[in-house]
Amino acid sequence: MDPIVKLIKELGNLPGVGEKTATRLAYHILRCNKDEALSLAAAIKDAKDRIGFCPECYNLTEDKGCVICANVKRDKSIVCVVEEPQDVTAIEKSGAFQGVYHVLHGAISPLDGVGPDEVRINELVARIGKGNIKEVIIATNPTTTGEVTSLYIAKVVKPLNVKLTRIAFGIPFGGDIEYVDRSTLARSIEFRSNITV
Amino acid sequence: MDPIVKLIKELGNLPGVGEKTATRLAYHILRCNKDEALSLAAAIKDAKDRIGFCPECYNLTEDKGCVICANVKRDKSIVCVVEEPQDVTAIEKSGAFQGVYHVLHGAISPLDGVGPDEVRINELVARIGKGNIKEVIIATNPTTTGEVTSLYIAKVVKPLNVKLTRIAFGIPFGGDIEYVDRSTLARSIEFRSNITV
Repeated sequence: MDPIVKLIKELGNLPGVGEKTATRLAYHILRCNKDEALSLAAAIKDAKDRIGFCPECYNLTEDKGCVICANVKRDKSIVCVVEEPQDVTAIEKSGAFQGVYHVLHGAISPLDGVGPDEVRINELVARIGKGNIKEVIIATNPTTTGEVTSLYIAKVVKPLNVKLTRIAFGIPFGGDIEYVDRSTLARSIEFRSNITV
Repeated sequence: MDPIVKLIKELGNLPGVGEKTATRLAYHILRCNKDEALSLAAAIKDAKDRIGFCPECYNLTEDKGCVICANVKRDKSIVCVVEEPQDVTAIEKSGAFQGVYHVLHGAISPLDGVGPDEVRINELVARIGKGNIKEVIIATNPTTTGEVTSLYIAKVVKPLNVKLTRIAFGIPFGGDIEYVDRSTLARSIEFRSNITV
């Protein structure tokens, strides 16, 4: 296959990259200096060679175990279940969570052929089965697939006798009630909290 | 540097890819199977290793000379000057041009630090100097930088005693006059052609 056509095809496999964008990127790569292009190729290979999963929480990590699981200051009895490694980064940035994580690497989505066995729910159940976990916080996205995943996890985790919670959804901080969508507003009213004075 | 951070940085150097998109692409690469990722890395390296410039027209080519310049059926006396290799592909698809090309690899843009010497205008002048070219069709884009480039080429090519033309601009085929922008409409009226019956 012609190297340009092949490169366009490979770039087109990336998410959100159609044929036009792939063509534009390919011609950019062909135009830029050689070191720049080879550095991108090397970064892809290097990341793929060196990054693996943490055997405990399945977050992406360069070493055998991830820094969060290895940190003795983290509370191993609280597990926050997220869909993607990016979610871990986002929650870590908030600084509000001192427990450990469990990364599912996806959400249950029957239409896309993703069942419970394709995301790491069995691994979560096995982890809880070891008996050291007291609370599971489900932090999947407030989307159809995230909600389905949350309900499924709740169903399989319930018999294991741990506290099961879901992160709160409502008006975002700094948000404007006038412009918030109906579902969010309904949820924020339904789950209103007491004001303590 | 952390391989994930490095990969995000490298992907962020691509045109139109910001930090968020780069992060999304990086995590996709880390999630997809290894063959797929390495195949992308190999395609980048391969394209960069095997693709070079045609010494005649500066189009991208896998061999020493490009297929268009090597084709004995093409009229070597008419040269169509374009900004990018993609433009050659587009004009070739139209099937309306039987001459050869000259690829500038950019347009004059003083604000971006691109002067006449950064695009292959000297090479065009040298090519015309050999005396086999009768007509130069300027097919740079109808943008500020494309127009500047067109005017500059016209200035340097004029003394060389060849026919100098510019591709036509006007209402696109299938276009709707009601929705065409003012500049295009003005141009299409100014350069109106006679109807022959």
